[in-house]
Amino acid sequence: MSAGKTTRPPDANATLARRPFVRHADAFKSGSDTPSAFLDRCLAAIDTHNGGIRAFVTMNVDAARKAADAASARWRAGKPLSPIDGMPVGIKDVIETVDMPTGMGSPLYDGWRSQRDSATVYALREAGAVVVGKTVTTEFAATVPGPTRNPHDLSRTPGGSSSGSAAAVGAGFLSAALGTQVVGSILRPASYCGAWGFKPTVGALNRGGSHDYMSQSCAGVIAASADDCWAVACAIAERAGGDPGAPGLYVEDEAGASAGGPLTLASLRLPGWDKADPRAVSALDGVLDRLRKSGIAVRDVDLSETLAPALPLTRKINGWESRWPLNTYADRAAGKLSAAMHDRLREAEAMTLSGYRADTAQREAIRRDYAKLAETASACITLSAPGVAPQGIAATGDPIFAVPSSLLGVPAISMPLATIDGLPLGIQLVGFRDKDATLFAVARRVAAVMDLA
Amino acid sequence: MSAGKTTRPPDANATLARRPFVRHADAFKSGSDTPSAFLDRCLAAIDTHNGGIRAFVTMNVDAARKAADAASARWRAGKPLSPIDGMPVGIKDVIETVDMPTGMGSPLYDGWRSQRDSATVYALREAGAVVVGKTVTTEFAATVPGPTRNPHDLSRTPGGSSSGSAAAVGAGFLSAALGTQVVGSILRPASYCGAWGFKPTVGALNRGGSHDYMSQSCAGVIAASADDCWAVACAIAERAGGDPGAPGLYVEDEAGASAGGPLTLASLRLPGWDKADPRAVSALDGVLDRLRKSGIAVRDVDLSETLAPALPLTRKINGWESRWPLNTYADRAAGKLSAAMHDRLREAEAMTLSGYRADTAQREAIRRDYAKLAETASACITLSAPGVAPQGIAATGDPIFAVPSSLLGVPAISMPLATIDGLPLGIQLVGFRDKDATLFAVARRVAAVMDLA
Repeated sequence: MSAGKTTRPPDANATLARRPFVRHADAFKSGSDTPSAFLDRCLAAIDTHNGGIRAFVTMNVDAARKAADAASARWRAGKPLSPIDGMPVGIKDVIETVDMPTGMGSPLYDGWRSQRDSATVYALREAGAVVVGKTVTTEFAATVPGPTRNPHDLSRTPGGSSSGSAAAVGAGFLSAALGTQVVGSILRPASYCGAWGFKPTVGALNRGGSHDYMSQSCAGVIAASADDCWAVACAIAERAGGDPGAPGLYVEDEAGASAGGPLTLASLRLPGWDKADPRAVSALDGVLDRLRKSGIAVRDVDLSETLAPALPLTRKINGWESRWPLNTYADRAAGKLSAAMHDRLREAEAMTLSGYRADTAQREAIRRDYAKLAETASACITLSAPGVAPQGIAATGDPIFAVPSSLLGVPAISMPLATIDGLPLGIQLVGFRDKDATLFAVARRVAAVMDLA
Repeated sequence: MSAGKTTRPPDANATLARRPFVRHADAFKSGSDTPSAFLDRCLAAIDTHNGGIRAFVTMNVDAARKAADAASARWRAGKPLSPIDGMPVGIKDVIETVDMPTGMGSPLYDGWRSQRDSATVYALREAGAVVVGKTVTTEFAATVPGPTRNPHDLSRTPGGSSSGSAAAVGAGFLSAALGTQVVGSILRPASYCGAWGFKPTVGALNRGGSHDYMSQSCAGVIAASADDCWAVACAIAERAGGDPGAPGLYVEDEAGASAGGPLTLASLRLPGWDKADPRAVSALDGVLDRLRKSGIAVRDVDLSETLAPALPLTRKINGWESRWPLNTYADRAAGKLSAAMHDRLREAEAMTLSGYRADTAQREAIRRDYAKLAETASACITLSAPGVAPQGIAATGDPIFAVPSSLLGVPAISMPLATIDGLPLGIQLVGFRDKDATLFAVARRVAAVMDLA
């Protein structure tokens, strides 16, 4: 871990502070701050640090400035379109944008323009958000990384597949960025980069116009604060809903967890727990201690057996589901698909529809099992990752603690609550299907106990 | 109706015979016929008749000949890839193809190339099918028609939105063609054009790479015979499965309806029954009489009340679900969207997520109600459309009898069993969720009773 310190600038934490937006509403209203000035500060941070971090594939600064000016005028007139009117956001480069190419992290899509906004991007624009650029993704949001580096230590991975989104938010380039997760692609990079990460209930945010078609795939948000994260998700849900047929994000906390009453958390032991850095486990224990002292009940729950299939089963399900389009891509230009993708395709070609049915049935059984926990806990708490971001950018780290919520289809939040040697480590909350609002209420209480602004 | 006769060539039925493929397997094996020769006969029919019918947007004859030659060699070697190896097929032009543009029936997508095959098209090619061309669709598979005319009477609509697919199969240009249905876009044109039409259980065939994203949307098949229809569907399901998360098409008839034992059909009275042409009702009665005489039990079931919301509820659900991408298209080039699409978008913009949730909950309740029918009937039988194809090509006809299976998410088949004044009229079978194979078994029994080859 010590090697990391040498490449990290001494003032990293000071210059790379997260840049929350929603809390400045009063300043935007009064005119003491404006979205245009806010954007300028983001662009200055990008100018200074993006050369090393490389969070973006493409930017559209002119359009961003224009959008920020329009937002500034609306706040001045007392008529913001939404709480995120003027918020600088980034878009993972598997999600289509009308004004920028969508490269999918693959030479197959180099410079490709869909000439439309995805459902999420369109909703963000309707809400007034300022789309600054496209953020680096691994190849087709899977394994092979792009050039992005961890803002807290340039010698380390930012995590993947939402690498650029997490790095940009962790570096204070943006207040929020869209990500996608089918294994651990939001929670892990959020943990590594010191950002909030939100993987919603499966189907809760409309995936239309995103290269993100698997049955566990989710559009989600990486953001500078819990409020920014939730505001972005709500702005999308209200305007674009969820996936067709799904009920979409429920924005009200029916359980009333925000009311400050009794709260029980299940402290989860996950499969692969022996991989956890002892310092990470002790950081989690420190958080749990403070929560207990604040009056929140915490009980230990060992799901390492129930969730043991989470990663292998996810990989099998994703395998069958990526048979197409990998097969048509391989036919078109085999040399432009990575070896990892060719391996995945080969495995997929050996699978059968009846095998897939058995796999999804097993997933369904695990989901039913997990759902029973809701009778005794408002949410679960655990680590987002086994430790801080590993050295090197050739791999994006281990998704082992992030994959359970993907398999379960339930909401999860990575909270930037801990550090090891100054490097961020996420503490994860895992919730229950369609109870995303409750999970955010719990996250706010936990953050308050931990004095996280 | 009589006006139609004047533009219909006197030998229409002779020259425009459907062109079934699967039944020629023995001839392909023995070499007395070949897929290449079969394709030549299709191309000759296209040469002669497509000028008037205009079923295609694009064709790739060179690639088709090459694929047919390869299939011919495989049959000769006794190693066909599947029962549809060498079958000439067409692809509705909302479904992506690597070798041809995908125009969506919209000037917004004129000449657009996705550079990949859809999941269905890739599966068809893997099974050896010969992709001849892209078939005309209405604008974004919705309302505004293309130039296609009914092969049985050029002054009449072929129906929509799978206009070109149905016309091409009805004209004997192809043995099968892919369609999509969210209201009545497979069953209605199949009925009007004298083809078999199959709208599977929702999610049964993978929609990846198709502009066909609504929650009731289905990829389906229009074909020259029941066997061709089913063989194409099975070939896709085995290779591409269903939509991600869905179990995919079940290819086995668990109910054993194919065994020839006792069979009960529910004769359905649908909402809008008063719109039915009395000659259509009497054609249906004629079919029911023959079925009863053959020993099949038929009992009357009136679902006109249960299914009364089918069309208005479908339109509301589709409305919210097409908010995106219509909003981003309208922003990009408002003048390239039809007035009908602008109307739909305006309605959609007035909708809310909570209204949508109520609509899908109502749909779910209707589905549960309908499912009870399975206790007393193997399938339902009714009309595919209120009558034959109406005059004119400015509108594509009334989807009122085709929409119930869309709302219900259940399989339906339009069988070319009847005619009125020489114009085709489909008799519809409606089945139960995931019981697509049973429905085909019933269809084959019905066709046999009716002496339909």
